[in-house]
Amino acid sequence: MAKAGRWRALATERVYTTPIFDLHRLKSTHPNRGERDFYVLSAPTWVNIIPLTAAREVVLVKQYRHGIGDFTLEIPGGMVDPEDPNPAAAARREMREECGYDSEVIIPLGQVHPNPAIQPNMCHFFFAPNVIKVGEPNQNVGGAEETEVRLVPLANIKQMIRAGAISHALVIAAFSFFDLYNPPRSD
Amino acid sequence: MAKAGRWRALATERVYTTPIFDLHRLKSTHPNRGERDFYVLSAPTWVNIIPLTAAREVVLVKQYRHGIGDFTLEIPGGMVDPEDPNPAAAARREMREECGYDSEVIIPLGQVHPNPAIQPNMCHFFFAPNVIKVGEPNQNVGGAEETEVRLVPLANIKQMIRAGAISHALVIAAFSFFDLYNPPRSD
Repeated sequence: MAKAGRWRALATERVYTTPIFDLHRLKSTHPNRGERDFYVLSAPTWVNIIPLTAAREVVLVKQYRHGIGDFTLEIPGGMVDPEDPNPAAAARREMREECGYDSEVIIPLGQVHPNPAIQPNMCHFFFAPNVIKVGEPNQNVGGAEETEVRLVPLANIKQMIRAGAISHALVIAAFSFFDLYNPPRSD
Repeated sequence: MAKAGRWRALATERVYTTPIFDLHRLKSTHPNRGERDFYVLSAPTWVNIIPLTAAREVVLVKQYRHGIGDFTLEIPGGMVDPEDPNPAAAARREMREECGYDSEVIIPLGQVHPNPAIQPNMCHFFFAPNVIKVGEPNQNVGGAEETEVRLVPLANIKQMIRAGAISHALVIAAFSFFDLYNPPRSD
């Protein structure tokens, strides 16, 4: 069987800008396939974090998602901002902002490509053990985000994913690292 | 704690078109937050399928991905085309095209939102037991896709995900449905 060839990028042009990603058109060349255009979404590194209370409840966020035009249940997460020293700090910040919960221990679980076909960025997963409530969610006055906090027993998560009550692929991937691929040694 | 409010879409405008998705700007309004613009990627339904041989090897596809500018290892998958009668048929077609393997049995495992913040579409996961080689991958002459087939023992998948050799969030989510959330009753 023939070996899949490598493409070489010739030029890239930003064709549209939004507050959360830029759309680029990439012109690339391939030994057997010539020159073609591809489209890439440039976005910052993303983070997700599983906050778990001492009572083994996961702190979930209910929020309106404009892509599907409906509410979702997710673990907290977001983009790594330029001010964040690293992805773990960004995840902790998002957990405090979206949930009002905190932990001094932030354990890395792994990272994935959200969509390597069209996005260069990665999403890093973390686990925060023994989180405690330290305040109210920051409703980002003047901003567009509003969250409601829901505490759900960790033991219920599997059934919620199976039933579609938790449907975000990156959240499901985070729980799979927690369960299967890189479970924290102690929690 | 305040309840998260629902947004109401006022208008949508297609601002950019690509062969695999369109970018829309959505103007929406919220009782407490006024009118704002959001960006949504419209794409067809996506599918992924886990092809397993009688020897319990998973049929993986190595291909160049322009988002990350490198090769990935993935299960076969793609978009549901207008000609596909349903997602299961699309998954079977992609498996034949990308791998040259087939099975008459296509078992649904579940579905997820790839990214509910910016995409309305879902990705459906399937499992194809006892696949057999029926031909060569269709290298889509004149097209831009080239694939190499790799057979990997199912028992190795977990370690490959942990080590980052399989890094696509949707592929990892598909295996988590296979392992945890909706494992096929027989294979």
